[in-house]
Amino acid sequence: MGVLSGKRGLIFGAVDERSLAWHVAKRCIAEGAHVVLTNTSAAIQLGTVSELAAAENLPLIACDATNVDELRELLRQTQELLGGKIDFVLHAVAQSMNLRRHKPYEAVNYKYYEQTIDTSALSLHKLLRVAMEEDAIAEKGSVVALTYIASERYFYGYNDMADAKALLEQIARQFGAIYGREKGVRVNVVSQSPTPTRAGGAWKEIEFFYKYSNHLSPIGNADADDCAGVCVALFSDLMQKVTMQTIYCDGGFSKTILTPELVEDYRDK
Amino acid sequence: MGVLSGKRGLIFGAVDERSLAWHVAKRCIAEGAHVVLTNTSAAIQLGTVSELAAAENLPLIACDATNVDELRELLRQTQELLGGKIDFVLHAVAQSMNLRRHKPYEAVNYKYYEQTIDTSALSLHKLLRVAMEEDAIAEKGSVVALTYIASERYFYGYNDMADAKALLEQIARQFGAIYGREKGVRVNVVSQSPTPTRAGGAWKEIEFFYKYSNHLSPIGNADADDCAGVCVALFSDLMQKVTMQTIYCDGGFSKTILTPELVEDYRDK
Amino acid sequence: MGVLSGKRGLIFGAVDERSLAWHVAKRCIAEGAHVVLTNTSAAIQLGTVSELAAAENLPLIACDATNVDELRELLRQTQELLGGKIDFVLHAVAQSMNLRRHKPYEAVNYKYYEQTIDTSALSLHKLLRVAMEEDAIAEKGSVVALTYIASERYFYGYNDMADAKALLEQIARQFGAIYGREKGVRVNVVSQSPTPTRAGGAWKEIEFFYKYSNHLSPIGNADADDCAGVCVALFSDLMQKVTMQTIYCDGGFSKTILTPELVEDYRDK
Amino acid sequence: MGVLSGKRGLIFGAVDERSLAWHVAKRCIAEGAHVVLTNTSAAIQLGTVSELAAAENLPLIACDATNVDELRELLRQTQELLGGKIDFVLHAVAQSMNLRRHKPYEAVNYKYYEQTIDTSALSLHKLLRVAMEEDAIAEKGSVVALTYIASERYFYGYNDMADAKALLEQIARQFGAIYGREKGVRVNVVSQSPTPTRAGGAWKEIEFFYKYSNHLSPIGNADADDCAGVCVALFSDLMQKVTMQTIYCDGGFSKTILTPELVEDYRDK
Repeated sequence: MGVLSGKRGLIFGAVDERSLAWHVAKRCIAEGAHVVLTNTSAAIQLGTVSELAAAENLPLIACDATNVDELRELLRQTQELLGGKIDFVLHAVAQSMNLRRHKPYEAVNYKYYEQTIDTSALSLHKLLRVAMEEDAIAEKGSVVALTYIASERYFYGYNDMADAKALLEQIARQFGAIYGREKGVRVNVVSQSPTPTRAGGAWKEIEFFYKYSNHLSPIGNADADDCAGVCVALFSDLMQKVTMQTIYCDGGFSKTILTPELVEDYRDK
Repeated sequence: MGVLSGKRGLIFGAVDERSLAWHVAKRCIAEGAHVVLTNTSAAIQLGTVSELAAAENLPLIACDATNVDELRELLRQTQELLGGKIDFVLHAVAQSMNLRRHKPYEAVNYKYYEQTIDTSALSLHKLLRVAMEEDAIAEKGSVVALTYIASERYFYGYNDMADAKALLEQIARQFGAIYGREKGVRVNVVSQSPTPTRAGGAWKEIEFFYKYSNHLSPIGNADADDCAGVCVALFSDLMQKVTMQTIYCDGGFSKTILTPELVEDYRDK
Repeated sequence: MGVLSGKRGLIFGAVDERSLAWHVAKRCIAEGAHVVLTNTSAAIQLGTVSELAAAENLPLIACDATNVDELRELLRQTQELLGGKIDFVLHAVAQSMNLRRHKPYEAVNYKYYEQTIDTSALSLHKLLRVAMEEDAIAEKGSVVALTYIASERYFYGYNDMADAKALLEQIARQFGAIYGREKGVRVNVVSQSPTPTRAGGAWKEIEFFYKYSNHLSPIGNADADDCAGVCVALFSDLMQKVTMQTIYCDGGFSKTILTPELVEDYRDK
Repeated sequence: MGVLSGKRGLIFGAVDERSLAWHVAKRCIAEGAHVVLTNTSAAIQLGTVSELAAAENLPLIACDATNVDELRELLRQTQELLGGKIDFVLHAVAQSMNLRRHKPYEAVNYKYYEQTIDTSALSLHKLLRVAMEEDAIAEKGSVVALTYIASERYFYGYNDMADAKALLEQIARQFGAIYGREKGVRVNVVSQSPTPTRAGGAWKEIEFFYKYSNHLSPIGNADADDCAGVCVALFSDLMQKVTMQTIYCDGGFSKTILTPELVEDYRDK
């Protein structure tokens, strides 16, 4: 009898057992939800999500989240599989070829940039637009997208992904107002500590940054399971009037400038 | 088997059945928590909290939250009554004589101002300081204080209470860092929609403002029970790395400038 | 002997005498700057900027700000005309076909959306990238882009332009860090009150909104000349360490929830 | 013929030649303003401001900014000395006995805390209240108070001064709305980089922090003269609709999480 008991959820973005999306899926199930997983065919082939889905007996549907028709089909199948409208959705979709190919921000490939925006931000627009058209999300349903604080403050090396996250947060606010007015659907983003996922590994300097971020976070970096907890809270009926917000799951990092640990680390330089 | 099953909580500020604190207490109990209520002797005599406490079989302890010695005694008694360290605390303590006596902000009585600050903001400092000294809050415990967005943006008529709320939020951030580092204790504030409580009634223009705020909130004003849900989420183990934050339980008001409803209301003026 | 005495500036976006960019240009000249104007061929033909430029004896160069090659040529010509590196740049470039054609946000044409982003946000990226490559901006130069608060809070009817503005602000922060580190170049955005320009006329409900915004702004809406003053301050040597910021030229609107005027207007509804 | 030509200003807080207030005063004079200096008798005796004032031929009036009667007398004398209403005011008043006596935040002396608040925040309330009562500030006049980002994010060691700054910013917003509506008077705060003043020297760890802050600021820490430039811009007619804002004069620090310099410094730890 968990806090998501009987709820129906759709979760984008699990690739392997390190994925934030996978942690969210597991915790949702533990809280009583019925869950469908989705990712691109490429990500499904690349990672281990099909094994994970099979082990948990979860449906896994291939879908390109930048394609409106595939999204429409996904929402239809998901409702059919789960036996009703969808109560919650996790959007954990992000990819940057500029990051991967080490094109610096001031010298991005604009074709890649467009893809970064389309995959990592506009996919949320397309998803929510199709969901509204299909009336696929239940009244007072809850949608969460994952972001990172580089959307608000410069983070050396996060590149065009930071732009995509800023746009993603804006799209969340806009649909939070529009879908909220229409059906009471909530849309929020969770701004998570840096987490050692497959995607995280694409940033340069990441190892160094875990420690720095941990020392600037009064209660330490949040891990994937902490992120999952916040998503569960947002999906649940506990936070029914929280919408259009950025929720920081970051151990206090976003509200901290200086800690004793940082002084210790840095002082002798 | 609720999300607060077995947790021990201390709740400040319930006066009567409209109080946010009372709604929080009820929902915490429904989620399995053991709760102690506290308020000043004056508030206990003025309101109906002793009847409410009796009906739910909850201990009610009189305490002046601006008095360090009384706070110390309160924390000791609470731990004794609940059989262990405290897992969560709600701070819902606010009072302004300037508001009550209709002294405009630019002509406040400075003696009253000092009392507003002491009661409505510094009481959180004193509470957390004594809690640290007494080691009264369990590891990874959770403290929530209630605020209103007038702490960040000018709200005609909210007077020196807006100053107290700005200071309260700052005190929450500071102790979030300090107590967090020490014991992993989280400290957050919930910024709630205007709610028709006894305290709310002291604002001028409040009736008008409910409608305005409702129309500027894409999913409508949050009510006392919505506030309670967010507090429960923050007290639970679902949000263990969320700290030093302001969580808006406001139907999206804080992230909205213009809605169709407002256009409708305002246009013909 | 104005505050921009001897400085060289490049100003995008003047269409006619109501344009913010035109007001900025005039005030820059009055403060002693040498200025080159630029806009697209279409805007030049559509508006009256060529007459304005001729009357003030200002060079006017046609340039599509989404085209890297044209930007490169523009920066070269501007430096040649002004006799040296560029000290300041105003980016006032924005256009949305979705707005014009009244496609609601939840039903945008994605081809138009891409154009909105490209014209209204990515053009700043391209401009600054080419400026870095060409070393076209002087040490400690100053770049300002114009934005609106709909980038942060939902504004019914502002549509995909709000997304473009959110992205524009992010691009400004990123280049503020990168170009700043390289050459001390500052990049800021000015978030201006709603202003009755040609572009402003494309929003629905705009007349109503001027009054509402004015009544929610303690010192009233800022007009085009107020915007020009802030741009001049940012271009000058007075604000040499202000960078990556959003400066609100809005009469206090961004920090206000309720005023006596609004109560008066709204109360009887 | 500077940008403050003929304007009358009152400047609080100069102690010696390192003071931010002293730099502001000098730059205001250079821009054509007539200036009166004020500070407490104690600060005047302790520092060198009387020599500085004498050398520049500036009136210096002793005043305790926490005392309403002394403020009233100060405003009267200032108007008399300058020959008219006051156009601009700098509030640079801050003191914490808890900081000085190394009382940690969680163990402050509450008597000192009250003094910190009274001196460093409430003094702005008293000043503006008396100015309104006396109608001492000219229409569209400009008031600036100095703050530091520790008001928004935890800064280890800044202690109760961080609380005072949070309250100061709130008081600035409230009077910005109230005095703005009444007389068009603008009230803003400038959030300055850490600066090696006499006051700055009271923080522990300050030397280390200069370097850290400098490396996290893409264009480097702002110095006292940079701060003075921003104050001049705010006092001038260039920023007439900017009010109730926090302006960051910090080289981009407030909008930055990670820079190449920080990676370099920190990596090997």
